[in-house]
Amino acid sequence: MTRFHHSLHQDKNSREIFAEAVNESLSSVDKGISTKDIDALVVGNTVAEFFEHQSHYASLMADWTGLLPVPSYRIETACASSSTAVEVAALGVASGLYDTVLVGGVEKMSTLKTETMTEALMSGVDIAYDYPAGVTNPALYAMMANAHFRKYGSKWEQLAAIAVKNHHNATMNPKAQYQSEVVELGNRIGSRQGLSFKDPLEFLRSPVNPMVAFPLRLFDCSPISDGGAAIIITASEDTKRYTDAPVYLSGLGHASGTMSLHDRSDLTSVPASAEASRMAYQMAGIEAKDVDLAMVHDCFTVAEMLATEDLGFFKRGEGGKAAEEGRTSLDGEIPINTDGGLKAKGHPIGATGVAMINEVYKQLRGEAGKRQVENAETGLIHNVGATGGTVTVQVFRT
Amino acid sequence: MTRFHHSLHQDKNSREIFAEAVNESLSSVDKGISTKDIDALVVGNTVAEFFEHQSHYASLMADWTGLLPVPSYRIETACASSSTAVEVAALGVASGLYDTVLVGGVEKMSTLKTETMTEALMSGVDIAYDYPAGVTNPALYAMMANAHFRKYGSKWEQLAAIAVKNHHNATMNPKAQYQSEVVELGNRIGSRQGLSFKDPLEFLRSPVNPMVAFPLRLFDCSPISDGGAAIIITASEDTKRYTDAPVYLSGLGHASGTMSLHDRSDLTSVPASAEASRMAYQMAGIEAKDVDLAMVHDCFTVAEMLATEDLGFFKRGEGGKAAEEGRTSLDGEIPINTDGGLKAKGHPIGATGVAMINEVYKQLRGEAGKRQVENAETGLIHNVGATGGTVTVQVFRT
Repeated sequence: MTRFHHSLHQDKNSREIFAEAVNESLSSVDKGISTKDIDALVVGNTVAEFFEHQSHYASLMADWTGLLPVPSYRIETACASSSTAVEVAALGVASGLYDTVLVGGVEKMSTLKTETMTEALMSGVDIAYDYPAGVTNPALYAMMANAHFRKYGSKWEQLAAIAVKNHHNATMNPKAQYQSEVVELGNRIGSRQGLSFKDPLEFLRSPVNPMVAFPLRLFDCSPISDGGAAIIITASEDTKRYTDAPVYLSGLGHASGTMSLHDRSDLTSVPASAEASRMAYQMAGIEAKDVDLAMVHDCFTVAEMLATEDLGFFKRGEGGKAAEEGRTSLDGEIPINTDGGLKAKGHPIGATGVAMINEVYKQLRGEAGKRQVENAETGLIHNVGATGGTVTVQVFRT
Repeated sequence: MTRFHHSLHQDKNSREIFAEAVNESLSSVDKGISTKDIDALVVGNTVAEFFEHQSHYASLMADWTGLLPVPSYRIETACASSSTAVEVAALGVASGLYDTVLVGGVEKMSTLKTETMTEALMSGVDIAYDYPAGVTNPALYAMMANAHFRKYGSKWEQLAAIAVKNHHNATMNPKAQYQSEVVELGNRIGSRQGLSFKDPLEFLRSPVNPMVAFPLRLFDCSPISDGGAAIIITASEDTKRYTDAPVYLSGLGHASGTMSLHDRSDLTSVPASAEASRMAYQMAGIEAKDVDLAMVHDCFTVAEMLATEDLGFFKRGEGGKAAEEGRTSLDGEIPINTDGGLKAKGHPIGATGVAMINEVYKQLRGEAGKRQVENAETGLIHNVGATGGTVTVQVFRT
């Protein structure tokens, strides 16, 4: 994957960002691989229509990565686009039509300013209901946070603990957008106003971390990012040609949910997350307790809290407390978002699912450097489209 | 499928149009089917982002067709989106993950006026090169026409014959946007200026049929349309549960080509069409001469001429002459676009591929009414994204 960043890739087209990710992916194959070995290309991209006025995206990427004339597919399921692309690639291999498929995701978001960005991102929710009502994505997740707080007594400080943890993990990830502790970032921002903070919570509670949609503040939200990521999927029996240390995709889960929150009976969980994880665990033949580490969709801190409950890592209502107690930290019982998550690694929407897999791949191969989780054998990714209209869960094993 | 039309569906959202197509699809299954039998939904949609400011499209359609929580996929490959969706559905079934998949396409285009429509449709070509140069889709196809005319001596009258044929076929298709002969349509338009025409060519040559991009006139172009289409794909061994007269998908072809014409060495053919047909014929174990009828992508009349050569129905340079001689008419040796084609049936981009399959399905089952081709056993669809960045070819057999 490329580094995820808000300004570093501004002078590149998304096709150049994607090609960079693809080149790294191809050149990092242990025993080597050539573009001639690739039978198809599947690309997750969310709304290049708005960011670059570009559709017909996969064909363009096939051209720019030297893969013509292979079949190319562009998959769009909002923020879950590239993990859904991985699923389509896996179906292609499992069907026997393809032996080896290159699958990736990309988004160049830095082309838009805040207002048009908000408008572009609202296309992922129900345009007939949510958008005219004036809600935005942070507001929708804020409603979920408030519902959870009310029902379970969970609180904002628990969400803050998630932000602090993910920024800490990102300090050890050279591909992350922000590679500083929360308090350092806070002091960098505060210094412009002559302010300094001694601990993360002091900063996070201050007006320097402004309210976006109660109770979510700026540092409860993932950033706007540019970036690309790519992986290679091949049939299990063919892996030896390319590596002696493959990572196996052993469980696929994918469920659809209502686009609008007003169609859900309860806002304290995301039904499609629970359903997708049930499917993935069943196919992999495992239970939640067998998972060694997970990358979950923390577009907002509250989303990570809900995910750790929906995926079955913690009981309902206990996700926030678990984060606060360090049970999801690198040295906790179930490390979550070891790469910094969407929160700190960045969230170029169409690339996010494959970037999660990139981290699981590194962890399961013992190549995650300072953030390595010991004896990691089973990793999971959880990728959410908008507020849960689409959720994918995928289980990977050594 | 719904009727395709430029104004009939104006008061509906695309979700309502899609639901109408899905309802017809489900209710026309010979032995009945329930939404509970559907394991996944795959939706082809090209740019609802521009037409309705809506992305995350498949999830929304799963909701509105009563299919939650099945996995849903939105596939976008410009004008080839829904045939590519069919391919993904087929991979899902062939992989064994799904037994039965609902797959469809939809586009509601009537929301935009001409200038914004042209801009929206240009997102399907290379936005970094073609769009800033000021070309539009008709201009790009006009270049191909001129190249073909120059190389082979083909001429505009041959393209006109394609328009006349497709409008004639559409008079027998109750789902078509235009159900009148070309000359009748010409007289309807001409009557506003006190003009009348005795034969189609007289009208087509007149200023009442204005030049769009030389040599392409208005009636060389497919219209702007609203519409939806859906089909159901199930494993071959499961078909008996639903029907005694299934139609088998026996060949899949799909190739990517350069987005820009400036990257092609020759404009008189579409390389991805030739490659995709080679793949499809090979998988189906047939040759071009075994095809009884074909729906080809006539977004412009010249596109049909090129397609009949690229698919191997006629020698290079002879496609136009063949059309003029009636060899592609309903009673010709290889009937092309029996349903009226994109030209006269209409072209709601995201729905077009599945609508082509709808026609092949009807023809192979002997249910095509007045436009029935006798003893049709092998049908083909050919669906092109933009100027050939994506081409799919699929072979169906009884």
